[in-house]
Amino acid sequence: MATDRDDVLRAAQRVLNADPAAPMSAVAEAAGISRATLHRHVDSRESLLVELGTRSLDRWERRLDDVDVEALAAEAAPASLRAALETLVLGYVDDSDAFGFALTDQVILANAELVERTQALAGREAVLFAAAQRAGVLRTDLPLRWLGHAVYGLLVAAREAVRIGDVARRDVGHLVLSSLLTGVGTP
Amino acid sequence: MATDRDDVLRAAQRVLNADPAAPMSAVAEAAGISRATLHRHVDSRESLLVELGTRSLDRWERRLDDVDVEALAAEAAPASLRAALETLVLGYVDDSDAFGFALTDQVILANAELVERTQALAGREAVLFAAAQRAGVLRTDLPLRWLGHAVYGLLVAAREAVRIGDVARRDVGHLVLSSLLTGVGTP
Repeated sequence: MATDRDDVLRAAQRVLNADPAAPMSAVAEAAGISRATLHRHVDSRESLLVELGTRSLDRWERRLDDVDVEALAAEAAPASLRAALETLVLGYVDDSDAFGFALTDQVILANAELVERTQALAGREAVLFAAAQRAGVLRTDLPLRWLGHAVYGLLVAAREAVRIGDVARRDVGHLVLSSLLTGVGTP
Repeated sequence: MATDRDDVLRAAQRVLNADPAAPMSAVAEAAGISRATLHRHVDSRESLLVELGTRSLDRWERRLDDVDVEALAAEAAPASLRAALETLVLGYVDDSDAFGFALTDQVILANAELVERTQALAGREAVLFAAAQRAGVLRTDLPLRWLGHAVYGLLVAAREAVRIGDVARRDVGHLVLSSLLTGVGTP
């Protein structure tokens, strides 16, 4: 049975998401190939992680493209900005289920190319947040640069809460969005 | 100059907080000792991480003791519950500066003893959150088990925002507390 590179990366993603410290032998096993074959696909654990990190950034980029961040930000209509924010965050939560470990993986967070691309995508996201602040959808007393971090933190929380079984997968999108926008305190 | 175990652990914490993937040689260098001497103090990278994880949980436990969680929860006064929540979260933010890497370190998150102790401390914290829900301080439409995760996620966010220089250390306590309780959306 032919196993292509894509199958291998998908198996690796599944294994590392369940156990981010999983050894390469566990990745090979999950992909149904030998360690030697795995090494023909990826030459080291680090290059595997960098490739999965790249794929998680590809997904982030696609989410930003899908809501058409720049066009929306130019338009400045509160209702569409709010709807786009919701779509974006719910999309991120879906992705964090597949790419969760990449959010906090130290190899990925330390890779210079991935860091640079992360900054660029955070910059695009910030265009939307800034428009939402101007349109009165997001608080203006919080620094723009904090907003993306708050989203990121709640995604890490969502991923961890689902992983250890504290929260059902189907509930977590709502929990992240609601906690993000209105907080966990009473009004 | 005599370097005791405590100095070594403090140096390790500092190094790993700045670069969680730092090798043992960087830890030895920061502690001003040779790798051989470092190995007399800690026999492996894993045991070093477990020890630092234990210290971060000691600190969490002390924060819960300091606000006297169980007594407060029994008392059920909204104003004191809210004040205790604020004290607790601001304390966590301070600790995340020193122990930040431990929040997401894979060795620490996978260690059975640390996981068990984490669950116990999360349980104590949940006693406070439950009392705050009953007293009308925290929303009751969010599941109790989510609340601790939301706090955790914003601590990860705070740590990362400070680490990469997006947010000033002096501002981050307020940002976490305000985002947690009232959200980043406009009312």
